[in-house]
Amino acid sequence: MPWTQRHITLDAKPRGFHLVTDEVLDQLPEIADVETGLLHLFIQHTSAGLTLNENASPAVRGDFERHFNEMVPEGQPYYEHTLEGSDDMPAHIKSSLVGHSLSIPIAKGDLALGTWQGIYLCEHRNHGGARTLVATIRGEQQ
Amino acid sequence: MPWTQRHITLDAKPRGFHLVTDEVLDQLPEIADVETGLLHLFIQHTSAGLTLNENASPAVRGDFERHFNEMVPEGQPYYEHTLEGSDDMPAHIKSSLVGHSLSIPIAKGDLALGTWQGIYLCEHRNHGGARTLVATIRGEQQ
Amino acid sequence: MPWTQRHITLDAKPRGFHLVTDEVLDQLPEIADVETGLLHLFIQHTSAGLTLNENASPAVRGDFERHFNEMVPEGQPYYEHTLEGSDDMPAHIKSSLVGHSLSIPIAKGDLALGTWQGIYLCEHRNHGGARTLVATIRGEQQ
Repeated sequence: MPWTQRHITLDAKPRGFHLVTDEVLDQLPEIADVETGLLHLFIQHTSAGLTLNENASPAVRGDFERHFNEMVPEGQPYYEHTLEGSDDMPAHIKSSLVGHSLSIPIAKGDLALGTWQGIYLCEHRNHGGARTLVATIRGEQQ
Repeated sequence: MPWTQRHITLDAKPRGFHLVTDEVLDQLPEIADVETGLLHLFIQHTSAGLTLNENASPAVRGDFERHFNEMVPEGQPYYEHTLEGSDDMPAHIKSSLVGHSLSIPIAKGDLALGTWQGIYLCEHRNHGGARTLVATIRGEQQ
Repeated sequence: MPWTQRHITLDAKPRGFHLVTDEVLDQLPEIADVETGLLHLFIQHTSAGLTLNENASPAVRGDFERHFNEMVPEGQPYYEHTLEGSDDMPAHIKSSLVGHSLSIPIAKGDLALGTWQGIYLCEHRNHGGARTLVATIRGEQQ
């Protein structure tokens, strides 16, 4: 089966960790045609990231945001890259801690996520705006 | 060559970082048939992760556990997701720091790991139980 | 189109985060032949990692180094793996935080990086020497 590769956009979100599984899947109907394969999601930014985590309790996403602000605080005296705002350099570091891409297995036309797994957009800027992903799908057809 | 995709199980392990290269490879004999390809391992959980690191000294795995407990401590006053135990929220964060999947090159029927690299299961719960991975293999046949 | 897989070498670099996009791409002319695909880069070491981040300001790379030294300090009293030098155990941990591989989409013969994204070699040893990557390219031909 041919490769599918397409840019998709996630609407602007406030700083924090956001569950975006549905927002991603609604834009990728081609997954339904794949019997066995992989979805690769790649965010084309350096101050936002992608990860997988719990899809149920919103408190988990809040705790992620609070803990990341503790692990990578704003205003560290050794930051030299400060011109773009105090949220900028921490956003670069946080995004590399979670990473900028996800590879998720596709099985029988659906993502083979665990029961509790969802896709998180990790928005580390105060005003990050819409975010662009490159989605690449390859596999075997049903 | 057709895609291979299969669930494999890792036996229950105590909290900590565990070298599981052999436990994974024993369940994936198909790797031997691949001349050039990639193995994708995906853990279907949100409180355990996968990484690569040193395959020799057990002290490295112990130091990982001790340092992750320092970087992501239990009982932070700002945690709101606390109902499932004090090890739960840190486990979610730690798993996103190491990540939930690995892509490893396959060359001449074997993983193209560096001399010192092994696959780690990062078990962040006190009693996480057995863990399920989805293994996906694609490539060119020998 | 057949898979391409090849070892490439990055010249020895001092401890720190280094922008290596050009050093990598100069060794992978095959990318130009791919219409739609993925590049997988895999570092065969346990004390250096790969990530993507800002390709413009060198201060970003300096801030990464300073902050990683704060998040994963040398000489923690609980480190037991200390025989190979005080930079060794932190290097293992830091490399698993950023990760050992990158998957980057290829579109129309070029990496589909965002405007500000570049490939970083994260060199966590004081004298890490040259580093070996396994590059794997697959996709559809132009």
